[in-house]
Amino acid sequence: MKINVVSKILEANEKIARENKELFDKTGTYVLNLMSAPGAGKTSLLEKTITELNGALRIGVVEGDIQGTYDAEKINSLGVPVVQINTGGACHLDANMINEAINDLNLNEIDLLIIENVGNLVCPAEFNVGEHMKVMLLSITEGHDKPLKYPLMFQESSALLINKIDLKPYVDADTERIKQDSMSLNPSLKVFEISCKTGEGIKDWTGWLYGRIQENR
Amino acid sequence: MKINVVSKILEANEKIARENKELFDKTGTYVLNLMSAPGAGKTSLLEKTITELNGALRIGVVEGDIQGTYDAEKINSLGVPVVQINTGGACHLDANMINEAINDLNLNEIDLLIIENVGNLVCPAEFNVGEHMKVMLLSITEGHDKPLKYPLMFQESSALLINKIDLKPYVDADTERIKQDSMSLNPSLKVFEISCKTGEGIKDWTGWLYGRIQENR
Repeated sequence: MKINVVSKILEANEKIARENKELFDKTGTYVLNLMSAPGAGKTSLLEKTITELNGALRIGVVEGDIQGTYDAEKINSLGVPVVQINTGGACHLDANMINEAINDLNLNEIDLLIIENVGNLVCPAEFNVGEHMKVMLLSITEGHDKPLKYPLMFQESSALLINKIDLKPYVDADTERIKQDSMSLNPSLKVFEISCKTGEGIKDWTGWLYGRIQENR
Repeated sequence: MKINVVSKILEANEKIARENKELFDKTGTYVLNLMSAPGAGKTSLLEKTITELNGALRIGVVEGDIQGTYDAEKINSLGVPVVQINTGGACHLDANMINEAINDLNLNEIDLLIIENVGNLVCPAEFNVGEHMKVMLLSITEGHDKPLKYPLMFQESSALLINKIDLKPYVDADTERIKQDSMSLNPSLKVFEISCKTGEGIKDWTGWLYGRIQENR
């Protein structure tokens, strides 16, 4: 019974996700769904990515949060269009929320739309929103056991960004094990080690992302 | 429509939670529901807490994970009874899962049952499981914006443990702001700064917890 309800919700979500995707393809907007646990550094990554690519691409952002506009204000100060979704308790974004949010954006003028999902390693991976690519961020401080404990997000993502590697000397997490376990779940996963604090690895990530967007054109 | 479904699920959950609570009170088992984002250190805290209190109290553990028995094995090696719940995708524990799990424990021989919830700052706070107290753990590496972005868990918890304070010199998070924002959401919240790595603050936490259990008897 409970499973029926869930599968109907996911089915309805898929339908709207496909409609979103068609619209994105029509306007030539490449869409990235950015997911992580709370506090892994999604907004800092957004800031770095926007600063790096803003000359080459016209970027827009959808911010997903339970409540508040804290992150959207940070992004807005970078001068890119941003829409805030407040889920009011829901622990993930769904296709319908995105469908409504993009009404407030001029997609014809956006080459890259980054959707910052709610901080959660579980449900965001279950709900497609019409994106071209899912990317996940894992803070090295979260430990090396995460791929095997939260496998779906690692399986669904095209890239894994291991963030806060400036803290490597001070934590026990084994980066090689994170890579190994992630790639055993998803052999085509592209892995980057980055630090949004020091900037390390950011250009590798944005260069790769830029290449993916060009390939899609 | 969707909201109706959710409210019915929560209602049904409350009923089972009350039944669990009655059973816990009958067997004299104090139950703590431990919640946090992924990788904040719940299992490390469990290890420290068990080591500290194991002489004074008979402790049991319920481990909640999407899949796997990684944490349960760690806890089992400490010699306390542990039951693993695998939610198979669900991002939180509910009262019914606990109701089934405790069939595998002899509650009459457990003074303190600690339930380690799925790593998630959102949904676990919505589902009572029959616990006497909710406690949340926040890693200082997650940043000081979490109370205002994920308010429900801070509101529902009796205690907030700010973990990994050994990393304070290396991160920008403002501990005072975490405390201030948390207490504005929940003035009766008890806050501890701890490090499961160095052991700092652990005795303050376990001393307080022991006191709460004695008061409840």
